[in-house]
Amino acid sequence: MQDSTRMSADTKADSAVEGHPQGYATLLERFAQISDLTRAGSLLGWDERTMMPSAGAEGRAEQLATLSRIGHERLTDDSLWELIEELGSWAESVQGDDRLEADTVRVARREAERARRVPVELRAEMTRAASLGETAWAAARGESDFAAYLPHLERNIELARRYADCFEPEGHRYDPLLDEYEPGMGTADARKLLGELRRGLVPIVAALAEHPDAVDPAPLQGSFDVAGQARLANRLLGLLPLPDSSWRLDPTAHPFAAGIADGDIRLTTRYIEDDLSMSLFSVLHEAGHGIYEAGVPAALSRSPVGQLSSLGFHESQSRLWENWVGRSRAFAGLLLPMLREEFPSRFDALGPEQLYRAANYARPSLIRVEADEVTYNLHIALRFELELELFEGGLEAADLAEEWNRRTHDYLGIEVPDDAHGVMQDVHWAAGLFGYFPTYSLGNIIAAQLWEAAAADLGDLEQLIAAAELATLGEWLGDRVHRHAARYLPAELAERSLGRPLDPTPLLRRLGDKYGELYSA
Amino acid sequence: MQDSTRMSADTKADSAVEGHPQGYATLLERFAQISDLTRAGSLLGWDERTMMPSAGAEGRAEQLATLSRIGHERLTDDSLWELIEELGSWAESVQGDDRLEADTVRVARREAERARRVPVELRAEMTRAASLGETAWAAARGESDFAAYLPHLERNIELARRYADCFEPEGHRYDPLLDEYEPGMGTADARKLLGELRRGLVPIVAALAEHPDAVDPAPLQGSFDVAGQARLANRLLGLLPLPDSSWRLDPTAHPFAAGIADGDIRLTTRYIEDDLSMSLFSVLHEAGHGIYEAGVPAALSRSPVGQLSSLGFHESQSRLWENWVGRSRAFAGLLLPMLREEFPSRFDALGPEQLYRAANYARPSLIRVEADEVTYNLHIALRFELELELFEGGLEAADLAEEWNRRTHDYLGIEVPDDAHGVMQDVHWAAGLFGYFPTYSLGNIIAAQLWEAAAADLGDLEQLIAAAELATLGEWLGDRVHRHAARYLPAELAERSLGRPLDPTPLLRRLGDKYGELYSA
Repeated sequence: MQDSTRMSADTKADSAVEGHPQGYATLLERFAQISDLTRAGSLLGWDERTMMPSAGAEGRAEQLATLSRIGHERLTDDSLWELIEELGSWAESVQGDDRLEADTVRVARREAERARRVPVELRAEMTRAASLGETAWAAARGESDFAAYLPHLERNIELARRYADCFEPEGHRYDPLLDEYEPGMGTADARKLLGELRRGLVPIVAALAEHPDAVDPAPLQGSFDVAGQARLANRLLGLLPLPDSSWRLDPTAHPFAAGIADGDIRLTTRYIEDDLSMSLFSVLHEAGHGIYEAGVPAALSRSPVGQLSSLGFHESQSRLWENWVGRSRAFAGLLLPMLREEFPSRFDALGPEQLYRAANYARPSLIRVEADEVTYNLHIALRFELELELFEGGLEAADLAEEWNRRTHDYLGIEVPDDAHGVMQDVHWAAGLFGYFPTYSLGNIIAAQLWEAAAADLGDLEQLIAAAELATLGEWLGDRVHRHAARYLPAELAERSLGRPLDPTPLLRRLGDKYGELYSA
Repeated sequence: MQDSTRMSADTKADSAVEGHPQGYATLLERFAQISDLTRAGSLLGWDERTMMPSAGAEGRAEQLATLSRIGHERLTDDSLWELIEELGSWAESVQGDDRLEADTVRVARREAERARRVPVELRAEMTRAASLGETAWAAARGESDFAAYLPHLERNIELARRYADCFEPEGHRYDPLLDEYEPGMGTADARKLLGELRRGLVPIVAALAEHPDAVDPAPLQGSFDVAGQARLANRLLGLLPLPDSSWRLDPTAHPFAAGIADGDIRLTTRYIEDDLSMSLFSVLHEAGHGIYEAGVPAALSRSPVGQLSSLGFHESQSRLWENWVGRSRAFAGLLLPMLREEFPSRFDALGPEQLYRAANYARPSLIRVEADEVTYNLHIALRFELELELFEGGLEAADLAEEWNRRTHDYLGIEVPDDAHGVMQDVHWAAGLFGYFPTYSLGNIIAAQLWEAAAADLGDLEQLIAAAELATLGEWLGDRVHRHAARYLPAELAERSLGRPLDPTPLLRRLGDKYGELYSA
């Protein structure tokens, strides 16, 4: 078949792309169908979290498991593997700087290779257990009932261990889990980066504690009717470089963003009546994810390189819009007139500087998703450590609640009143997502590096924000990051977009400077 | 393999159902996965019509085509066919009155046999063309632009013809299309039933014309704010026998209902500010479909007999709740207090008899979905005739607009002002649904027969409605119709639920009596 592939490349007969072998068109079509299954699953997941009547939970778990099973069967099909092997040397030989074909076949090979190590029954069962676990978590969290949640947690950990053990034990047992969300990054690399970050945070957090009341959070607290919050959220999204008619925003318990198709981005947020900052910053955060998804070239959308695979880079986009744009002085100036319109009389006496300060209120707290820019990374450090111990074998599910509480005291200096505010606060473990948390801090690191690079190219970014010229920043990110989709491993994408490897220094510099100023006497 | 099947039946070894061969469990699991794909497609379709950002249309068409393609591949897989053949004689031999196994294998065989005649490329292309056609229709209808719609119409007709021609030309070329929506009913049967109905309607419609202003529609016309209509719709749904936490209602352009899973029913409606009857009766209508879907036993939900296959019976349920319950005198009495609450001062001076009369306003009109109980069936007669001619070869897509207008004049005595109010009013042909329309009149016929049977069992149904004891009627329908799911062909289900074959006489009697009284001098 290698020969017939070459022959059709020569004769250009019946091929979807001029001059390409028919096998390449077949590869693209097969991956397009796998992508359709994955995206259909994403829509089912979005629906489960935003729209689905609660009695539909069991049926939904089965549907998701079936989509996952079939996608996995297709990705691990022997004839697909043969096709990938046949196309390898042709793809590497295609002329031109672009090398799209080589990247496509290489990513296809990587995806298939990983998948072929995992039995289809395990993959389907992981999806089913995740869907059921998430439903059980949502119910048990309301009651802070760790005992009700524990069997699901145990099941998900057991499945994640079995998954990890499908791979060769070269490095750390946790490597394959991390690799699923941050391809090519080993546990040792993540430990080094997150360790540096954590050590660098120590003096910054200590400085916060010296003047704990330097910043007044009151302007964003009180009572904000949900309809007004929703109007504000939609106005903010209108300011951001999201393409028209291609997104929607819905409320959910645990905000997320999902790319359903080219031209179809789902954003979600959570409206809390007494805390406007929750919806405000979660909308900017999820929009960042959405802008990244929308920036994947349409032609790549259903191809092997169309599924964004580095959650670190994904999170860098959400953090950049949430923290670097949204929590800037310039953005407070943009935001204030809108706040005055949506919440009449509430913001009349407030100045932009006070709004800026309120948006940057920082203090050790219990809930990760409500944490400030500084202490957020301590929440991640805690989770990353616990995950590593779960997979090193020193820790079991039943001990997680107690360990969580002990380390929250150690890291953040606060007591956990109940498990709903402790180990049960996040959906991730309920949904079988182990290896995911560290990418949040990687995202913070990358966002800081991108910001420095953008400022070097575009000049004063605060001025750009003040002029509401956010499209300029969107285009820069599109050129540096988005257009590459998943063609490169994160380490290579870092070289291309940042010109250097990941480094926590810019983030630590920023946090030190910004919070040093805010939390001085 | 026949032998090993028998052996495991004897030894009861390793089987999912005690005493059943492993092959039966495999059959159920395979069909459960096919059902999951179908239902995932239903959710994608629901989302497309209620939630999806418009820029996502092309990606959605591809996703739907992929789900359809894979479902079709699985249903036509040779190993599934072998399994069905192996299980046939075992299933027929299973003891007990229930005969669920025999019904299950027989329905599985029927589904697989039909599917195996249709090439997978054709099935996927039909799904893709339907999704694109629907999007194009929605845009073109707004402009009444038949020329823009025509290529999609032509494409869908061409594909439907190719589909029909996949079957043996025993009877009418249209038979396989009708069979998809009303299994086992031939074109000749439908022609006979709908012909009788049409002839019986002639004197009733003529009588309407003698006193055209006998009924005043004004109480349900005027200005009704959409939020009030939505609250009313949700209150009405609360009265109906729909299980808790298992449904939701959303607005859409062309109301429909969809069963997504056991415990997950999606209802839709359309709110028109100046016509309350649109949302009012479409909600009751779609709820009827939803109650039927919810009545399928949970244990059958993902089995071959879990997908309701007779659209005639499906429509009988929607018509029964819309017309027989919703347009009754007793229901007007239930409804009026709610109308007074939701639309203050609007209904103060109105009596229940006036509301009853307004709900039954009848007059030839342009739009099928807004038509009254009497003339509705003329809209169906027109569409059925045109469809037959499309498949007999005497008519082409380009001539449809003109033919539509001519027959609207002949049947209904009115002129069509533009194609948006003519041939482009319905989504069906845009979505490739040929053979579907006649089931609407079959549903009207069956609803009348069911009503007579229910009255024979339950006594005065008006009293039941007046007492808001709608659950009693729901249980009767559950026992007579819903619990059977798709175990029987419609003709057999008619025998079981009605004790007799389909017959338009009860419907004609009802329409003659009811509208004779309403439209007398």
